[in-house]
Amino acid sequence: MKIGIVGGTGNIGEGLALRLSDKHEIIIGSRTPDKACEFVEITAKLLAERGINCSCTGTTNQEAVDMGDIVIISVPYKHLLPTLSPLGGFENKIVITPVNPMEKNDFFWHNPPEEGSAAMLIKSVLPESARIVAAFNNISAQKWKELDDELDYSVAVCSDDEEAKIFVMDLVNQISRLKAFNAGPLQMASVVESITPLLLNIARYNKMKDVGIQFK
Amino acid sequence: MKIGIVGGTGNIGEGLALRLSDKHEIIIGSRTPDKACEFVEITAKLLAERGINCSCTGTTNQEAVDMGDIVIISVPYKHLLPTLSPLGGFENKIVITPVNPMEKNDFFWHNPPEEGSAAMLIKSVLPESARIVAAFNNISAQKWKELDDELDYSVAVCSDDEEAKIFVMDLVNQISRLKAFNAGPLQMASVVESITPLLLNIARYNKMKDVGIQFK
Repeated sequence: MKIGIVGGTGNIGEGLALRLSDKHEIIIGSRTPDKACEFVEITAKLLAERGINCSCTGTTNQEAVDMGDIVIISVPYKHLLPTLSPLGGFENKIVITPVNPMEKNDFFWHNPPEEGSAAMLIKSVLPESARIVAAFNNISAQKWKELDDELDYSVAVCSDDEEAKIFVMDLVNQISRLKAFNAGPLQMASVVESITPLLLNIARYNKMKDVGIQFK
Repeated sequence: MKIGIVGGTGNIGEGLALRLSDKHEIIIGSRTPDKACEFVEITAKLLAERGINCSCTGTTNQEAVDMGDIVIISVPYKHLLPTLSPLGGFENKIVITPVNPMEKNDFFWHNPPEEGSAAMLIKSVLPESARIVAAFNNISAQKWKELDDELDYSVAVCSDDEEAKIFVMDLVNQISRLKAFNAGPLQMASVVESITPLLLNIARYNKMKDVGIQFK
């Protein structure tokens, strides 16, 4: 499968590419395609050291959308609308959002848009036929990139498109020890997104690193 | 320590009493003290069968407040204000809230008051000297009551009173295998409360029972 990553040179995007490119063809999109190409070289080297062949291409965000059978929007919340607004071609595609609207002052806090969540905001600006799925919201960027560590976490998956949701749950379950859970309609993404600032606070106040969750 | 439970004959209240009354003196409050006394008899019998002595009293909600060194408000969200409004005597007491403002239509959803959370609402109606701590929000009532099962969950604890928070974290860590995590200021309770409807949805959509969380 071809997976396009918009914002593929950000922390989460790089981690996703590293973890997915042994099984799928990854198209890393970036505002600066040179950076994407550089990252592709690093990825190939890191994986080759582990005896893994990868298929990874660096290009523009628009090409990542156009080439991907599915598209992951991996940009910090503050860059979400500026990144999406010049892009087209999302019609009928599965679009995965791991984006969390949060801010930091004395502590991390959830600061959703009036649509209720980043996922609902994305739904409101993309074509109606785009199949939005929230997933991968609560895994730290650092953990994605520590390739020799297993990712032993639960992943809440929300969507109003049941077929797309099952498809993404299957993708989640292919990665390390991640376990996908159907968390209901896209409206529930507001809660899933809000868990990330909670985890960051828990890490900070309990002197922990890269805290994730398990449902059990 | 004397622990008063307001709404002690509800599901969570009963479970808390069962799990705490081997180590602490529990005062079960109820709008119907007869029901509280009945429950105390059942509790004593259940614990005696397991070779555990318990100290448990059934009485009114007001006496549960007056007699408790700390007070747990264990009522469904819709009964929160009607239950609290006739009660007094919360001055300087540690008040624990496991209350979650949620509703159900096609699925469970978080429906917080304008204060942001049940915890902040409680803070707004109790005397300023009451020391509000959110804890125990994400554990299912059924799990509390299955005395022969360990509770192997994480508990996010939120408060603006650091001393009270540490005190409650210590109480959490005394119960089964529960592990307390400092989750920051009381403002974060909104996220912690919202996790409960998410867990209920996950249970429902994934054919699971009594889903809880672990931070790791």
